[in-house]
Amino acid sequence: MHLTAKDFPEMERFFRRNFFNTLPGPRGLHLIGTKGHRGVENLGLFSSVVHIGATPPHLGFIMRPLTVPRHTYHHMKAQGHFTLNTVDESILAAAHQSSANYPIEESEFAAVGLTPYYSEGHKAPYVAESQIKIGLEYVEDHYLKSNDTLFVVGKIIEVIVPDAVIAESGHVEHDQIDTLTVAGLDTYFKTNQVARLAYPRPGQKV
Amino acid sequence: MHLTAKDFPEMERFFRRNFFNTLPGPRGLHLIGTKGHRGVENLGLFSSVVHIGATPPHLGFIMRPLTVPRHTYHHMKAQGHFTLNTVDESILAAAHQSSANYPIEESEFAAVGLTPYYSEGHKAPYVAESQIKIGLEYVEDHYLKSNDTLFVVGKIIEVIVPDAVIAESGHVEHDQIDTLTVAGLDTYFKTNQVARLAYPRPGQKV
Repeated sequence: MHLTAKDFPEMERFFRRNFFNTLPGPRGLHLIGTKGHRGVENLGLFSSVVHIGATPPHLGFIMRPLTVPRHTYHHMKAQGHFTLNTVDESILAAAHQSSANYPIEESEFAAVGLTPYYSEGHKAPYVAESQIKIGLEYVEDHYLKSNDTLFVVGKIIEVIVPDAVIAESGHVEHDQIDTLTVAGLDTYFKTNQVARLAYPRPGQKV
Repeated sequence: MHLTAKDFPEMERFFRRNFFNTLPGPRGLHLIGTKGHRGVENLGLFSSVVHIGATPPHLGFIMRPLTVPRHTYHHMKAQGHFTLNTVDESILAAAHQSSANYPIEESEFAAVGLTPYYSEGHKAPYVAESQIKIGLEYVEDHYLKSNDTLFVVGKIIEVIVPDAVIAESGHVEHDQIDTLTVAGLDTYFKTNQVARLAYPRPGQKV
C-alpha cells in the first residue's frame, strides 16, 4: 500500500488512529507515577519515553494536548518529581487499565491494584511491582505546534534495579526481566534478545 | 541496587553510558534516510522515534549534540525531507554498521550495502530493504538544554507498507514482519506479540 498525505484525511477515524499509532513499530512502555498536592497518587501509561543523554542522565516523553486535564503533567509541574516504572506481563492488565479516564480525586494505584512505593530521596510514588524504578526531577518542557503536544524532559535522580540484571558492562539485561514494549495504544510485545553487536567503525565489512 | 544522583558521576564512563542507555528498556529502531545538496545519500540509525499524533500524523526524535557535524540534521534542514525505515533481522548487521562515523562525502547506503529507493512524491531516499517506509517533511525542532540535544519533529507525507500487514482495524501488524527494537546502542530484540487489549474504561476489573 502506497499512501500520500491526501489519503490521510479520508481514512476512517479509528482506522487512522490505529494505523499511525502502530506504524513506526513497538516502542518503550512505562508507568509514570506522580502525587498531587492533596496527596492523591496518580498513575499513567506512556509509550513515548526516549533516552536523551547519560551524563547527566535525562529522559523525555510526549504529553498529549492539555485541552483536557492531564493529572500527570499537573502533579509533575507542581511537585517537581515523577517516576518511570517498567511493565512486565505480571502487571500488564493493571498497567493497561491505568489508562482509563479516572477522576483526579481517585488514585489509579488503588483502582487497578498496584502498590505505591516511596524511597527517602524521592517525593513521587514508584510502582512496587515494577522491576525497574526510575526517579526523575522535572527539568523542562517544549510546546510542539504539531498536534498541540508537549515534549517533557526529566533528570534521573534515583534508580532502583535488581543487582542480578546489571551486566559488568553496565547493560541492564531486559530479556531477563521480560520488559514489555507496545505498538499503538493496545498491542503489547515481549522482549527476546537477538544480538548485541560491537561498536561500528568505518571500513568494517557487514 | 539503589543509586542516587551522587553515585552517577562516580560510574566508569562506558559503564554509565551502557547503564543509562539500556535502563528504560527496548525502544523503536529506525534508519533515517536523507540526501545532501551534492546528491550524497545519508543513512543513520536512531532509537528515539516517538509518535506525536495521528491527525495530522507527526513523529519526533532526538538528535544528539550538534558539537560535531550531524549529516542527517544538516540534510533534513536543507532539503526539508527525510525518511524513516524499519529494521528486521535480514538488515540488522547493515543497519548497525550505518552508525559508524563515515565522512560526509561517503554514502552509508553504499558503505553498508543497502539500496536507496525513491518515490515520485518524496525527495529523500528510502531503504528499499525496509518493510515499512515512512516519508516525512521537517516541521520544527526544539533545543533541549538537557545534554545539548534537539527534539526534531516531522510530518508524515507518505507511507509505503505491505498490504498484508494492515489489519481491518488499521493496526500495522509488526509481529508479521519481525520489526526489531533496541536497548541502548547495541542490544537488539525481536517482536513477539503477547496481547491486544480492549480500550480501558473506569470501573472495569483488572
